[in-house]
Amino acid sequence: MNLMLTNPPSPDIPAYSPAGNECALFETAWTRQLPLLLKGPTGCGKTRFVSHMAARLGLPLSTVSCHDDLAAADLTGRYLLKGGDTIWVDGPLTRAVREGGICYLDEVVEARKDVAVVLHPLTDDRRILPLERTGEQLEAPPGFMLVVSYNPGYQNLLKTLKPSTRQRFVAIEFDFLPKDREIEVVSSESGLGTTEVAPLVELARRLRVLKGHDIEEGVSTRLLVYCASLIDAGLSPRDAVRSTMIEPLTDEPDVRAALIELSQAVIR
Amino acid sequence: MNLMLTNPPSPDIPAYSPAGNECALFETAWTRQLPLLLKGPTGCGKTRFVSHMAARLGLPLSTVSCHDDLAAADLTGRYLLKGGDTIWVDGPLTRAVREGGICYLDEVVEARKDVAVVLHPLTDDRRILPLERTGEQLEAPPGFMLVVSYNPGYQNLLKTLKPSTRQRFVAIEFDFLPKDREIEVVSSESGLGTTEVAPLVELARRLRVLKGHDIEEGVSTRLLVYCASLIDAGLSPRDAVRSTMIEPLTDEPDVRAALIELSQAVIR
Amino acid sequence: MNLMLTNPPSPDIPAYSPAGNECALFETAWTRQLPLLLKGPTGCGKTRFVSHMAARLGLPLSTVSCHDDLAAADLTGRYLLKGGDTIWVDGPLTRAVREGGICYLDEVVEARKDVAVVLHPLTDDRRILPLERTGEQLEAPPGFMLVVSYNPGYQNLLKTLKPSTRQRFVAIEFDFLPKDREIEVVSSESGLGTTEVAPLVELARRLRVLKGHDIEEGVSTRLLVYCASLIDAGLSPRDAVRSTMIEPLTDEPDVRAALIELSQAVIR
Amino acid sequence: MNLMLTNPPSPDIPAYSPAGNECALFETAWTRQLPLLLKGPTGCGKTRFVSHMAARLGLPLSTVSCHDDLAAADLTGRYLLKGGDTIWVDGPLTRAVREGGICYLDEVVEARKDVAVVLHPLTDDRRILPLERTGEQLEAPPGFMLVVSYNPGYQNLLKTLKPSTRQRFVAIEFDFLPKDREIEVVSSESGLGTTEVAPLVELARRLRVLKGHDIEEGVSTRLLVYCASLIDAGLSPRDAVRSTMIEPLTDEPDVRAALIELSQAVIR
Amino acid sequence: MNLMLTNPPSPDIPAYSPAGNECALFETAWTRQLPLLLKGPTGCGKTRFVSHMAARLGLPLSTVSCHDDLAAADLTGRYLLKGGDTIWVDGPLTRAVREGGICYLDEVVEARKDVAVVLHPLTDDRRILPLERTGEQLEAPPGFMLVVSYNPGYQNLLKTLKPSTRQRFVAIEFDFLPKDREIEVVSSESGLGTTEVAPLVELARRLRVLKGHDIEEGVSTRLLVYCASLIDAGLSPRDAVRSTMIEPLTDEPDVRAALIELSQAVIR
Amino acid sequence: MNLMLTNPPSPDIPAYSPAGNECALFETAWTRQLPLLLKGPTGCGKTRFVSHMAARLGLPLSTVSCHDDLAAADLTGRYLLKGGDTIWVDGPLTRAVREGGICYLDEVVEARKDVAVVLHPLTDDRRILPLERTGEQLEAPPGFMLVVSYNPGYQNLLKTLKPSTRQRFVAIEFDFLPKDREIEVVSSESGLGTTEVAPLVELARRLRVLKGHDIEEGVSTRLLVYCASLIDAGLSPRDAVRSTMIEPLTDEPDVRAALIELSQAVIR
Repeated sequence: MNLMLTNPPSPDIPAYSPAGNECALFETAWTRQLPLLLKGPTGCGKTRFVSHMAARLGLPLSTVSCHDDLAAADLTGRYLLKGGDTIWVDGPLTRAVREGGICYLDEVVEARKDVAVVLHPLTDDRRILPLERTGEQLEAPPGFMLVVSYNPGYQNLLKTLKPSTRQRFVAIEFDFLPKDREIEVVSSESGLGTTEVAPLVELARRLRVLKGHDIEEGVSTRLLVYCASLIDAGLSPRDAVRSTMIEPLTDEPDVRAALIELSQAVIR
Repeated sequence: MNLMLTNPPSPDIPAYSPAGNECALFETAWTRQLPLLLKGPTGCGKTRFVSHMAARLGLPLSTVSCHDDLAAADLTGRYLLKGGDTIWVDGPLTRAVREGGICYLDEVVEARKDVAVVLHPLTDDRRILPLERTGEQLEAPPGFMLVVSYNPGYQNLLKTLKPSTRQRFVAIEFDFLPKDREIEVVSSESGLGTTEVAPLVELARRLRVLKGHDIEEGVSTRLLVYCASLIDAGLSPRDAVRSTMIEPLTDEPDVRAALIELSQAVIR
Repeated sequence: MNLMLTNPPSPDIPAYSPAGNECALFETAWTRQLPLLLKGPTGCGKTRFVSHMAARLGLPLSTVSCHDDLAAADLTGRYLLKGGDTIWVDGPLTRAVREGGICYLDEVVEARKDVAVVLHPLTDDRRILPLERTGEQLEAPPGFMLVVSYNPGYQNLLKTLKPSTRQRFVAIEFDFLPKDREIEVVSSESGLGTTEVAPLVELARRLRVLKGHDIEEGVSTRLLVYCASLIDAGLSPRDAVRSTMIEPLTDEPDVRAALIELSQAVIR
Repeated sequence: MNLMLTNPPSPDIPAYSPAGNECALFETAWTRQLPLLLKGPTGCGKTRFVSHMAARLGLPLSTVSCHDDLAAADLTGRYLLKGGDTIWVDGPLTRAVREGGICYLDEVVEARKDVAVVLHPLTDDRRILPLERTGEQLEAPPGFMLVVSYNPGYQNLLKTLKPSTRQRFVAIEFDFLPKDREIEVVSSESGLGTTEVAPLVELARRLRVLKGHDIEEGVSTRLLVYCASLIDAGLSPRDAVRSTMIEPLTDEPDVRAALIELSQAVIR
Repeated sequence: MNLMLTNPPSPDIPAYSPAGNECALFETAWTRQLPLLLKGPTGCGKTRFVSHMAARLGLPLSTVSCHDDLAAADLTGRYLLKGGDTIWVDGPLTRAVREGGICYLDEVVEARKDVAVVLHPLTDDRRILPLERTGEQLEAPPGFMLVVSYNPGYQNLLKTLKPSTRQRFVAIEFDFLPKDREIEVVSSESGLGTTEVAPLVELARRLRVLKGHDIEEGVSTRLLVYCASLIDAGLSPRDAVRSTMIEPLTDEPDVRAALIELSQAVIR
Repeated sequence: MNLMLTNPPSPDIPAYSPAGNECALFETAWTRQLPLLLKGPTGCGKTRFVSHMAARLGLPLSTVSCHDDLAAADLTGRYLLKGGDTIWVDGPLTRAVREGGICYLDEVVEARKDVAVVLHPLTDDRRILPLERTGEQLEAPPGFMLVVSYNPGYQNLLKTLKPSTRQRFVAIEFDFLPKDREIEVVSSESGLGTTEVAPLVELARRLRVLKGHDIEEGVSTRLLVYCASLIDAGLSPRDAVRSTMIEPLTDEPDVRAALIELSQAVIR
């Protein structure tokens, strides 16, 4: 696979531990100027992956967290009043198209509908960004890449990408790391030894099986890092587990009691 | 059929491979100053067709991607503040009516309701665009043509063209290309040989049959080009197929598994 | 009937072929200063009728296509910023009330609710237009007439005229022209001979029977003119019929197939 | 009843033919500075009654037609930009409170909810209008009176006066005039003789019985005047009846046919 | 009860006839700097009670009638344009917090949700009003008191105070006055003798029993005062009762007939 | 537990009586720069706890009460007009990120959806606040901490934290204080002796059992303090209990009667 980067990541590149062929896919998409869609659960490392690839490819990265009220104009730009005149101010997408680099729209399904459609002319062979309000039509340079992500686990019928948008992206499915890899990552991020981290990861894996039944989402790697950090700072494992792996997952007294019981079988 | 252009497309004309009489229909509608409605699935080439015809007829083309928040004023124009005064700035439709050429409204059903009605006086024998806010009434020149498109496959009960709007357009139905033609197009766009493209197209055709059952939309020609591009850049066919013809189509684990199985029967 | 105009329409008067007593009714309402409501299906000639009557009576005509976002202020006027001041700019209804002539609100039920109520003081014996924002109260001159139209065929429960609005208008019901008259009109508008037009009109009449069952609206006279125009420009009758009398009516494959079959029984 | 005005109405006072004790009630409410609520069907004369009483009592009258988008600020006033400053401009209610006279809010239930509440401090013993935006608190002078109306016949569950608003008004129920009185009024308003008007009123009374069954509202006195006017101008009674007493009432073909049959039994 | 004010109300203090311990409760809450919530039906005297207490305690009173569109900024203040700059203008709540006195929010549940939450830091031991837009944080002086009211009788599921808001107030339940007290109040407010008022109060009490069954709200004391005022001005008791105690309560013909019958059994 | 602060709270530190390990958890989270989520019922002391910890750690505290209309821009900042220019004004969150200290978002689930997502880059290892409108990207200093709270008791299906937001916080569950501790707190806050407070706390505990059945929320400690304050000021216990522990909890006559009966069994 001649696409893999062979030089080791420099200290400036955020650590990322690949789970499959996602690095090769990212680079091939970048080489071919194709936009990328990352799918996967909360806190499994999508954002870190994009930071890692941007640093590795030496590209500037502009990240936009999407939400219910994010409209196309928040990405493309707006007219603002300045000394009595209205002047145009580029949004982050427009800046990225003008200057090159990666524009990453995190949780793109949360954004308002007009955002997805603004992306259309940028994600077919035209690779243009028409700015209706200024009358400009920007052509994306070869160094521009659009990456979007979303979490298909949310049961939100109203929030989904239309086929006409989805079918414009090369897509990668993410999942949690394999057990041993996750232990390494959590230990290295929190400073807690792998022996102490191992049962936390074991517990997280048991809790993830409950996703969709008693709890909406499984424990993320991020929460595991939180938990190990608190233990490393002197909190008891039981208190740390409760505050990071149980209370953030549920408000239901019955479910909480069951999770505590489950955790006490794993964590002494 | 004396309407067909007999001179071969120049290198500046975007390549387009007609599936039926759509080129003749477009030209006749243009000659008779009738507006045109293009219907068809995602990524089957409607936008490319309009680019092709505009270049062939030597007409400027203005494309607007419609969305939920696109209002009439986004097409006709707005008053902006400039040095303390409000000055009028034409929108893309108004510019096209003033200067002639094709104005193409992509996915017109997505736009707000007032857009469709703004089109009414432009799409009957009056061919006028009244600008209520400025008090102007523009007459469209003979060289102006309105083209709109939408994808009837979306099961959106709230989003549909009213009969009073639909009945103002000559309409053309689009579908995917026949097998051999699609192989040629995908090969020529991606650089991958036709022998390697053929099973991809075969797989796409099998997946399209599932539309409306397990998947919302069939694989577009665009995704086929993406897939062939990734393979041409060195990715394995299985990885490329998964990232372009399976992950963009579904988030359901069961459906994904079935599609992978189906693809492995076609792609070694 | 001393109300009928006896002088033949001048060349400047848009051609209109009356189906009943609508011309006499329009004139009597105008003489008696009563507002008029035109009801009827898409493309049956309501807009043309108003243009015809306005020209015949020598009155200026101002037409407003109503839509979901059309508010009272779009008709009456707004304050705009000009050199730091807010100045009042009349809307089309206010202009018509100030200067006399016909103000025609097409598809009035589409407009926002405040529009219908703005019309109330203009449509009873007061015949006034109060402009709350400027503090003015305009009295309509004898030469002012309000005409509104809508299509009762739409099955839109939310969009209907309130009785308190409807009961302010003299109302005329429109329908499609009788067969022979429609053949004449289509032939004269398209340039195609009546012999070739006759089977198209025959087909349209068969399709109109399906309204409310398989299709939402019957074929309009306008679409017949489109069809005849395309044939006159060299397209085959089958292609022209499909693009103007079938594709604009339905997106359902089954219905489309049935309409094609029906059309092939009429059009060779 | 010492409250009845004994001097005959002057020519400047709009004619009004009382159906009961409404004139005495209006005057008593005015004397005692109580607000008034008029309830009744479309076109039965509520607006005319208010005009009549205002002229009779020598009071200026300010009428506001309420609608879905009418907000409190439309009644009380707004800040507008003037030479770079924001200046306050009184709305019609504020003007009436400052200067005295009757402020009449027609169809008050149509207005936005904040309107009803703005009326509260004006309609209890405080009789004040607080203008939060300017910081003023206006005391209504003795010569100020608030009159509101609505049509309880509309089956609109969402649009109703809250008890806390209703219980601030003296209320009068209106209905159509008795037969003989209505004949007189229609004849005098249209110019058509009472002999010819009588069967029209007879027909209207038969149609009013159908209210709530086949038709939403009965024929108003206003439509009777329209009908008689058209006949007086030369139209045949059948054409006039159809255009004023049938088409404005219904769009349903079956109901229309039934009404035509019913009308032909009464009108030759 | 050493909290009761023993000096008789001065002529400047609005008359108020207490039904229970509400005056002592108000004063104790004021002494202890606790906010107060008044609950009770329409027109039972809550607003009058607050006016009375404010005058008795010598405190300025600022009343805000809440409605659907009342937002936090209407209470706290806004930036307005003045000579090209934006200047801050205090709202009524901010003024009361700066200057002391009672701020009374009438029908607080009607207001938008952000209003209730703006009240939170003012209604716990912090007693502060943070003005996010100006960056100020105002501390309420000891002489500031917040009073809110609402009518729990409305069956509005969407409009209710959240527990986190309700549990910040000392609450008082109001009801109509006892019979004899109500007769005194109505007589004194209307000028009509107690003998003539007594049967009106008797009728009101019979009608109040129907609340929640045939009518939404019982007859308020205010309507009784209206009724007695009209009779005192010369109207017949039957006409006055119908216009003030029946028509304002219902639009249903059946219910109206029943109420008239009921009233004629009490009022000759 | 070396994390516990051993020096006694200074007089400037708001009194707080911990129920468990919440102080140690807060400090550990602060040391490790992790964001904190506080869950618990109305009036159980969450806000007081944050004030206490902020003072103890010597950190400035900025509190924002969230509500339905609180948008991201209310936290991050806005452009305001100043002398004809638009200038940027920081919101409370931006100020806290620039200057360090605790930013506390009370009832964060009430805020608009865009708020939660603005928090995302601040609550993972990036600890950044991107200000899209100014183009800045602020890095949170080590002394910045984000704390949010909400009440999981509300049965609001529409208002909940998404897993992708929840899983970014260390979470602490709060509940009411144990009986003896609550008696101490209420006595110390109100000035009423513990003997008189004891039955009030006993009653509160009995009422809390009814939560979710007859009443939406149990009696808060704050209401207990109100009740004891009123008694201390001279009101009878029965009147005080009714106004603070019964009327604020319910508007239902049946429930109110039951609560009164229950209270009279405890409070003489």
